[in-house]
Amino acid sequence: MVKTMKAFVMKKIGEVGFTEKPIPEPGPNDAVIKTTKALVCTSDVHTVKGAIGERENQTLGHEAVGVAYKLGSEVNEVKEGDRVAVNAITPCYKCENCIRGFTSQCQQLLGGWKFANIKDGVFSEYFHVNDAEANLTLIPDSVPDEAAVYAADMLSTGFMGAENADIPMGGSVAVFAQGPVGLMATVGARLQGASLVIAVDTIPRRMELAKQYGADFVIDFRKAEPVEEILRLTDGKGVDSTIEALGAQITFEACIKVTKPGGTISITGYFGEGDYVKIPRLEWGVGMGDKTIRTGLCPGGKVRMQRLLRLIENGRVDPTLMTTHKFKFDEVDKAFHLMDTKDDDILKPLILFD
Amino acid sequence: MVKTMKAFVMKKIGEVGFTEKPIPEPGPNDAVIKTTKALVCTSDVHTVKGAIGERENQTLGHEAVGVAYKLGSEVNEVKEGDRVAVNAITPCYKCENCIRGFTSQCQQLLGGWKFANIKDGVFSEYFHVNDAEANLTLIPDSVPDEAAVYAADMLSTGFMGAENADIPMGGSVAVFAQGPVGLMATVGARLQGASLVIAVDTIPRRMELAKQYGADFVIDFRKAEPVEEILRLTDGKGVDSTIEALGAQITFEACIKVTKPGGTISITGYFGEGDYVKIPRLEWGVGMGDKTIRTGLCPGGKVRMQRLLRLIENGRVDPTLMTTHKFKFDEVDKAFHLMDTKDDDILKPLILFD
Amino acid sequence: MVKTMKAFVMKKIGEVGFTEKPIPEPGPNDAVIKTTKALVCTSDVHTVKGAIGERENQTLGHEAVGVAYKLGSEVNEVKEGDRVAVNAITPCYKCENCIRGFTSQCQQLLGGWKFANIKDGVFSEYFHVNDAEANLTLIPDSVPDEAAVYAADMLSTGFMGAENADIPMGGSVAVFAQGPVGLMATVGARLQGASLVIAVDTIPRRMELAKQYGADFVIDFRKAEPVEEILRLTDGKGVDSTIEALGAQITFEACIKVTKPGGTISITGYFGEGDYVKIPRLEWGVGMGDKTIRTGLCPGGKVRMQRLLRLIENGRVDPTLMTTHKFKFDEVDKAFHLMDTKDDDILKPLILFD
Amino acid sequence: MVKTMKAFVMKKIGEVGFTEKPIPEPGPNDAVIKTTKALVCTSDVHTVKGAIGERENQTLGHEAVGVAYKLGSEVNEVKEGDRVAVNAITPCYKCENCIRGFTSQCQQLLGGWKFANIKDGVFSEYFHVNDAEANLTLIPDSVPDEAAVYAADMLSTGFMGAENADIPMGGSVAVFAQGPVGLMATVGARLQGASLVIAVDTIPRRMELAKQYGADFVIDFRKAEPVEEILRLTDGKGVDSTIEALGAQITFEACIKVTKPGGTISITGYFGEGDYVKIPRLEWGVGMGDKTIRTGLCPGGKVRMQRLLRLIENGRVDPTLMTTHKFKFDEVDKAFHLMDTKDDDILKPLILFD
Repeated sequence: MVKTMKAFVMKKIGEVGFTEKPIPEPGPNDAVIKTTKALVCTSDVHTVKGAIGERENQTLGHEAVGVAYKLGSEVNEVKEGDRVAVNAITPCYKCENCIRGFTSQCQQLLGGWKFANIKDGVFSEYFHVNDAEANLTLIPDSVPDEAAVYAADMLSTGFMGAENADIPMGGSVAVFAQGPVGLMATVGARLQGASLVIAVDTIPRRMELAKQYGADFVIDFRKAEPVEEILRLTDGKGVDSTIEALGAQITFEACIKVTKPGGTISITGYFGEGDYVKIPRLEWGVGMGDKTIRTGLCPGGKVRMQRLLRLIENGRVDPTLMTTHKFKFDEVDKAFHLMDTKDDDILKPLILFD
Repeated sequence: MVKTMKAFVMKKIGEVGFTEKPIPEPGPNDAVIKTTKALVCTSDVHTVKGAIGERENQTLGHEAVGVAYKLGSEVNEVKEGDRVAVNAITPCYKCENCIRGFTSQCQQLLGGWKFANIKDGVFSEYFHVNDAEANLTLIPDSVPDEAAVYAADMLSTGFMGAENADIPMGGSVAVFAQGPVGLMATVGARLQGASLVIAVDTIPRRMELAKQYGADFVIDFRKAEPVEEILRLTDGKGVDSTIEALGAQITFEACIKVTKPGGTISITGYFGEGDYVKIPRLEWGVGMGDKTIRTGLCPGGKVRMQRLLRLIENGRVDPTLMTTHKFKFDEVDKAFHLMDTKDDDILKPLILFD
Repeated sequence: MVKTMKAFVMKKIGEVGFTEKPIPEPGPNDAVIKTTKALVCTSDVHTVKGAIGERENQTLGHEAVGVAYKLGSEVNEVKEGDRVAVNAITPCYKCENCIRGFTSQCQQLLGGWKFANIKDGVFSEYFHVNDAEANLTLIPDSVPDEAAVYAADMLSTGFMGAENADIPMGGSVAVFAQGPVGLMATVGARLQGASLVIAVDTIPRRMELAKQYGADFVIDFRKAEPVEEILRLTDGKGVDSTIEALGAQITFEACIKVTKPGGTISITGYFGEGDYVKIPRLEWGVGMGDKTIRTGLCPGGKVRMQRLLRLIENGRVDPTLMTTHKFKFDEVDKAFHLMDTKDDDILKPLILFD
Repeated sequence: MVKTMKAFVMKKIGEVGFTEKPIPEPGPNDAVIKTTKALVCTSDVHTVKGAIGERENQTLGHEAVGVAYKLGSEVNEVKEGDRVAVNAITPCYKCENCIRGFTSQCQQLLGGWKFANIKDGVFSEYFHVNDAEANLTLIPDSVPDEAAVYAADMLSTGFMGAENADIPMGGSVAVFAQGPVGLMATVGARLQGASLVIAVDTIPRRMELAKQYGADFVIDFRKAEPVEEILRLTDGKGVDSTIEALGAQITFEACIKVTKPGGTISITGYFGEGDYVKIPRLEWGVGMGDKTIRTGLCPGGKVRMQRLLRLIENGRVDPTLMTTHKFKFDEVDKAFHLMDTKDDDILKPLILFD
């Protein structure tokens, strides 16, 4: 008799709900994890609204940690019963794009994103991990699940924003938007040696967290025009690097404008609308200004996870400051609703499975 | 009595002509060069049409070689009477942007471009070079002036297109447009290890030169849709790198579309129109596709020139294949006219001063 | 009944011979290849002499191409019957070092080297390939086996030497030793944009090939002291990059001496002797001269192979000029003997299996 | 009548003392600074012992800040009367090596080091700065002289050690020796995103400061063998990067041994003895282990100084914790003596001129 489990799914565009599914069986290279903690991401909400197209009864969620429940025969990196972490992005590590070094683009553009996109996600009592030898890692004893779960996406994506920004030691950085990814980009900019980090947002809780996470200045874009303010703070020179953490034309455009010639614009945001994202021609130096525009998708894999977990372990960042709400798994629909309305100043809701 | 010289100037927007000017005197760090050969650039034509604003009696031209005529007291790199080359871009090497490593952005966005922009250009019997110790270099005996003069802009800009494209050894590259800069980008792609170079143009002379300069395939964009054709030639995968050598929305957009996830789009073209240059959102991976967009302006300085001249000297490239026309200095206005109409399949007109 | 095949093995240190072995069976991720062509490498000779320790009846050889004979269930990159190439280095692509990006150091220092080191090599009628999805690739129709087989090690290692040398466009390079790897480093330096390539050797056949492969100067180290000669050829400045392709103290030391401050010394040679390799302190700038020393082991994987094969296909390099001798498989012992004595000016012996 | 000033000089090898010298006059590109604070460096002591050869009455010292006293006609970056900082290394920014990007190797190997090497140093009431436009910068109001003076060498060199170490975000680093440069390398490793910093020393004061500056572990090499201990702390894997901050064979060798395949060994130490620095062959991977050895000399120039000063200004590092002693200028000989004997646990003595 097949054992079943509870799963929170996207029934179709616009509709979510709980359902029963068989507990997955691992192939030789796979693993099945018993979920302990998860986080809801704004992109889960977008998915349900149809951002990546129709899905039928697909389990939602891509940020979770758990315990190794059943491992394929070829998986040696962890043992059954181990407390394990897995990134939101789970590359195969053997296709052309992976071997080229672009594992988040596994097999195709954005193809490393498999959870709740091309296979079931993590909002269920058990979830399946492909290519587990490369994607699973142990969680250090001193890192609790509720901190470790942030490594799956928030830390990895936010820090990537800083890494891609090519910040010189002692350089200056502006981070546009201070949602969870933007906050982690702020921390990341510090960890990449920025001597000046300017954060932009308007929501009080986020602005306060930006300060706590190390921003030297926080601009409230409802009170001051960010481009002008950043130029003012830098004697008209602009900053060495900018990080876009919203995915909007207005912030992208501001990034181009405040980045020095020779600087880098690093994108972490998902651009969800329109046929085009538009570069302001003059401030870009009419195509000759040495301003580089880089993008990326949350880097995955066990090595990435080990490094992020050790940053938590050794006190470089405490992501749990971002946990504004907690819900039991059978209340995950409430978390979803809040993440949609952004009521109650929600930042990240933690989902408890145990 | 001040000695004077003949200069070909932009009298005002839309009007060119010859005039007499005093031969310049060098300050301690400057040099004055007696012009021997020059090239007309399409951007000279744009300048006269007002692309960079009004100018009054400013000498035109930025591609020239000559003989060191008078050197400032601090200039030791060359001696009076030496045959010397100078790049179109002449950075100061001591401002913040130069020290940051972005010498083409000297002092301000695009500020390394001084000839015929913020000071007199090279279309005169003598011309002035700022910061000559860093900007002048000897021309090797075996490199004739008519070849060396191509290092000033065409080689430096075209090769930069290839260098910025981050081509993996044995990678694939598409070069959009095969004007002189595009042709040199084609050569540059070969010199950066590309195993597959696909060139795009439609003018027969240019397509033929593209082949001679090493393109493996040349697409006539009037006969085949370049994006489709490049995908066809690469089994639907696209190329590792693209080089944009036109400065137009249509080619920029094609670059984004045919570049693999993780690949680089390198811009050499001057984008002259519109408020925005538009990135096609989906093919860009909605801001998460690891596609990097780089730009740059012709790298200057004596070290660059030495390296480019040695590439000519040792037979890596023969730029003189691009010289379709020759004019004496007092006929430079005819060259200008042809570069505007592009009649007679003109590619580069060489101007003879001696 | 188990089918057997003929294999050429190292019986023990100092002794080689033919033996019969079972044709290997692939696991789900593996492949078995029917050998068509192979090359003997000097390192095979070293192995037999005990360079990597004792082995018992281990099949020799790491450079081969063949036809896919039997594929594991998870292998989709090629089909049975396809003509395929595989690199000498076959990483697993899922261990920590592979994921860190250092696939040649798979699992441990130098651990990507599996053929004839930690498992049977390729000198047998059939050979086994681990992690075949990542390691196998099709050979293009227009590339014959006898050319493709050079991609396995000679091209990959030699070109790596040039890639690691960080050659600026138009830079200068010296390549020490013109064995097959050194010759490919010479080609590689051209393909990385060097405007000046100086090769060093003394054997006439190698010096002549160095010229054919694009060296601008070839120094016979029995007729001139290479360090002095390189400084003479560069006005006392030295070169931007050096490539060591021998694995000896004398050439390593020369590399440090002729590399400019800020330049790179790239090692491709196997250093087989002594407790230490010694850096000359003063010429190294007493530890402050910005001279970088890089090393590496033949990069493997299907993407590398595809790129190398396309460089052959599109005429960037003809490695078959290095094939000085041909032997049938049952004469491979003769090839071995010649590679040991280096008699008859042998460079690379091709072994024919079909 | 020429105005004179007091200077502390190396009279000859082994002998120091005070003398009177004329106050220098600036050329058009130079500046003369009135000294306010300086630091003594162990390398000053080495210089007096003859490490860089004989000198006659050459003023000692290379770490100082002051007030712009007299500026050449071409110097616009600062005004007379401004409080200014200058790096220990003062490149010309127009020679070939500077333009190549290796400004510390100005004109020749290590040639960026001019103070107390090829011209008078800073231990005098006034000192001369060459190429002042590129080398001088304002000190921010909120940064006191006694902190700013550390940017001249200690921060710049120590941080360079971390920058050259190519530390991955969340990577692991070992720093050998915790003198002032090693301590700043420890801070630098944190600022480059290391999640694990292991420092090695034995002097209690230094070990304690290493902890304060952010080391996660400090190994006392008299109590534990550092190589074994580092391997133990990293599950036998070693670290991603090592920083050598002593300039000795024993620490260099340990660096090679504990660096992972694919990792980087970054040298900040001055290697003062012997004909050779020796690489342990096997742990280096016999020349194929992908272990990179980088070196460098304190990066100079105004942009570097601005970034370092802003790191102090915005609280990323407080270098004054290293000031163990203070002396008036006329007691600088006492500071020298202590730096030689290392008595009284001296780390850095601050010299007060005002």
